[in-house]
Amino acid sequence: MEKLTPRSENYSQWYNDLVLRAGLAEHSAVRGCMVIRPYGYSIWERMQQTLDAMFKETGHENAYFPLFIPKSFFSKEANHVEGFAKECAIVTHYRLKNAPDGTGVIVDEEARLEEELIVRPTSETIIWNTYRNWIQSYRDLPILLNQWANVVRWEMRTRLFLRTAEFLWQEGHTAHATAEEAIAETKQMLDVYAEFAEKTLAIPVIKGVKTPNERFAGALDTYCIEALMQDGKALQAGTSHFLGQNFAKAFDVKFANKEGKQEYVWATSWGVSTRLMGALIMTHSDDHGLVLPPKLAPIQVVIIPIYRNDEEYAAVRAKCEEVYKELKNLGIRVKLDDNDKYKPGWKFSEYEFKGVPIRLAMGPRDLASQSIELARRDTLTKSMENINDIGIRVINLLDEIQVNLFEKARKFRDERIYKVDTWEDFTAVMEKGGFAYAHWDGTGETESKIKELTKATIRCIPLDNPQENGRCILTGKPSNQRVLFAVAY
Amino acid sequence: MEKLTPRSENYSQWYNDLVLRAGLAEHSAVRGCMVIRPYGYSIWERMQQTLDAMFKETGHENAYFPLFIPKSFFSKEANHVEGFAKECAIVTHYRLKNAPDGTGVIVDEEARLEEELIVRPTSETIIWNTYRNWIQSYRDLPILLNQWANVVRWEMRTRLFLRTAEFLWQEGHTAHATAEEAIAETKQMLDVYAEFAEKTLAIPVIKGVKTPNERFAGALDTYCIEALMQDGKALQAGTSHFLGQNFAKAFDVKFANKEGKQEYVWATSWGVSTRLMGALIMTHSDDHGLVLPPKLAPIQVVIIPIYRNDEEYAAVRAKCEEVYKELKNLGIRVKLDDNDKYKPGWKFSEYEFKGVPIRLAMGPRDLASQSIELARRDTLTKSMENINDIGIRVINLLDEIQVNLFEKARKFRDERIYKVDTWEDFTAVMEKGGFAYAHWDGTGETESKIKELTKATIRCIPLDNPQENGRCILTGKPSNQRVLFAVAY
Repeated sequence: MEKLTPRSENYSQWYNDLVLRAGLAEHSAVRGCMVIRPYGYSIWERMQQTLDAMFKETGHENAYFPLFIPKSFFSKEANHVEGFAKECAIVTHYRLKNAPDGTGVIVDEEARLEEELIVRPTSETIIWNTYRNWIQSYRDLPILLNQWANVVRWEMRTRLFLRTAEFLWQEGHTAHATAEEAIAETKQMLDVYAEFAEKTLAIPVIKGVKTPNERFAGALDTYCIEALMQDGKALQAGTSHFLGQNFAKAFDVKFANKEGKQEYVWATSWGVSTRLMGALIMTHSDDHGLVLPPKLAPIQVVIIPIYRNDEEYAAVRAKCEEVYKELKNLGIRVKLDDNDKYKPGWKFSEYEFKGVPIRLAMGPRDLASQSIELARRDTLTKSMENINDIGIRVINLLDEIQVNLFEKARKFRDERIYKVDTWEDFTAVMEKGGFAYAHWDGTGETESKIKELTKATIRCIPLDNPQENGRCILTGKPSNQRVLFAVAY
Repeated sequence: MEKLTPRSENYSQWYNDLVLRAGLAEHSAVRGCMVIRPYGYSIWERMQQTLDAMFKETGHENAYFPLFIPKSFFSKEANHVEGFAKECAIVTHYRLKNAPDGTGVIVDEEARLEEELIVRPTSETIIWNTYRNWIQSYRDLPILLNQWANVVRWEMRTRLFLRTAEFLWQEGHTAHATAEEAIAETKQMLDVYAEFAEKTLAIPVIKGVKTPNERFAGALDTYCIEALMQDGKALQAGTSHFLGQNFAKAFDVKFANKEGKQEYVWATSWGVSTRLMGALIMTHSDDHGLVLPPKLAPIQVVIIPIYRNDEEYAAVRAKCEEVYKELKNLGIRVKLDDNDKYKPGWKFSEYEFKGVPIRLAMGPRDLASQSIELARRDTLTKSMENINDIGIRVINLLDEIQVNLFEKARKFRDERIYKVDTWEDFTAVMEKGGFAYAHWDGTGETESKIKELTKATIRCIPLDNPQENGRCILTGKPSNQRVLFAVAY
């Protein structure tokens, strides 16, 4: 197999080649839309299952709202339309007809919609328009819903998983009787995302809140989890928004409280998307290919028999089959690859490239000594194992690899959080990559100016951020806390 | 709770009221698009999970292809464009801008797409355009993929679940080296659908093949499963298409066979949709509300404590909690409803309306006698049960209810398959509802004429249909087999 472009040489080339060659996704014939291939999709499915269970444990149910949103809905919430509705797919007609010259089909101009429909870029508007009919009294609250859906935001520069015109995501939309309850929900879902990122994706994240400049269009507060990629750029891995009463006011959603008084409903929304696939790949993978945390790996263990003739094959195959069955019975996602069209060496690099966490290989000599070779994808190390202990060994090792990937990423990330106090040090960090933890004067103007000069944005104000007097990195004006800057995806 | 319109009085009113009032789905602000509410969605989720596992067991993987399809793709397969692409949602622009008069947003005419995009009504074209790059040799075959997705077909007259502009479905798209293999796949998936319908939905179905008039646009053969609703109308519950080499030819998808010769690839596609929700409701439910088969019921058992004062409550509640835990530990989806805002009578009709298969109720006297009242939703019968046997009793009963619903529906269906030999008998069947199993001369003209006269279509030619000489019900011309006619949804 052709070698990957090394990360050190060209990180985005490395990423793109890896996504394509590992069979995760590819560009489609439609500008900006990707095809998620089966191997990529099966990783996404595991993310979905894990998150879905976490949502249900915290009392949420799934529902489904329309793909299309009437154009006028976007104008109802002023900030929302400014932030969102501009770059989107617009449906204007509902019928094709045969071209008169017989060369195919054309749009039937007589089938023009009275009001254009927007393919949802996010669903606050259509959902809050629906909630109006569902909510009369405090007894109807809270509403705790989630939707798994595709959304479309017309992007000019796209990158597989990271930025595509159509992507898959989940969007939670909840309705509450009080601000306190809505804020608690917003924070709870941030915690769910952080736990999911760290325990399942093995990606360390910093929980924080966005500055007004970086807030979701229509939110009073946007909470987020921020991760650091191997090239030193940050990636926002999930957001949870406290929407206040903005959408309730825009769509006239009121409830009678316990005293019978009419009040506007309080809202949250929160989402993660197939972008997490990009975060996963860029956090763990290396120049040899994908590295997958065991909890998400479609294949956790591959077993490869090694033999030179039919007799050897029969003996080795039988033992490999035994190991296969043992691991399968232990609930491990295991594959026995006895395809004889490919040589063991080819298979070794194939599974390494695909990020299978553990590879087991056995030849006639191993069989004789009751041993089996075990290779770890995360450390690229090999060891000989006693075949009689292999079940428990593999189970423990899968846990160990999961933890190791997280710890490795955390170490990498922690080493790249720089406390800086001068503009010179700040720009140096932005050039080499990493988070700069620096004082800022708290104004949107300064934030914009810093972005203009360095491409860096304030990724978040970490939760429970210590208060400390200092001076803004750019303006020298007084500041009472540091915030986290980085150049971001 | 207000009574449902009885089925005998107005079947479609009954259906519509039931869907709305049971909280399954509702119409949205977007013409023809529905909102699937949490209770409805949780039933659909169970359908998805069951089917998805069956697809994977038969070797299929999931993937995801773009929502949009370039307009020109539809013209490539001549029959497909005739059958499909006309009534659809067409994206022509990709940007909104602020209206000059400040009244909201308008379409930015400068952001017109060079080629219009169609919101997928089905994905054969975009998928076969992708397969061209994935298939070079026989080693790349078969490709066995499925996609869970939303699709849009612009419908003028919509009904919740049964016919909506946007609906959710799965679409399998497979590619094979030989016609035989593709035909075997087509039939295998028909069997999967039939098993799913009968074992999970408890809906008896007839497996058959469509006449050329009723085939999927672009298919050489369309296999289907047909069910009978309680109003005597048929409903197509799933289809599996043998597409021959039509799409491979349209999108130039060839492979090198074992002899190195270039051949076109053979295709199948197969799908079921949220329409199954409609079939489920119309097969089992009654004038008291929903009836759900235990395998799909979000709540399989509800436990309702009955009491007049705090002392009684404490005692009854404690025992109900015990029963709840026992059933939960047995893997049953059980709910203990001790909400004191509602009276037991209200709860009884609520859960009856929602189709919960088993209701358990316990008051102080029951507690004293170590018994519990059990009510079955399918038969509306009650019995007193020994509280110490309740776990095993409930488990067995859930199985029994699942089977009973199927048998009841099968009896209903079987009693309405009429062998008819005269036009008079045929029209009588079409008026009262049911399947007419009748001779037909095999021509599309006669089929169309019968449809014109009676609204009846040939639902299918059953698989393994006995050959028998007879005369066409309309034309009197010779026929060698009967086919199944019905008025259909």
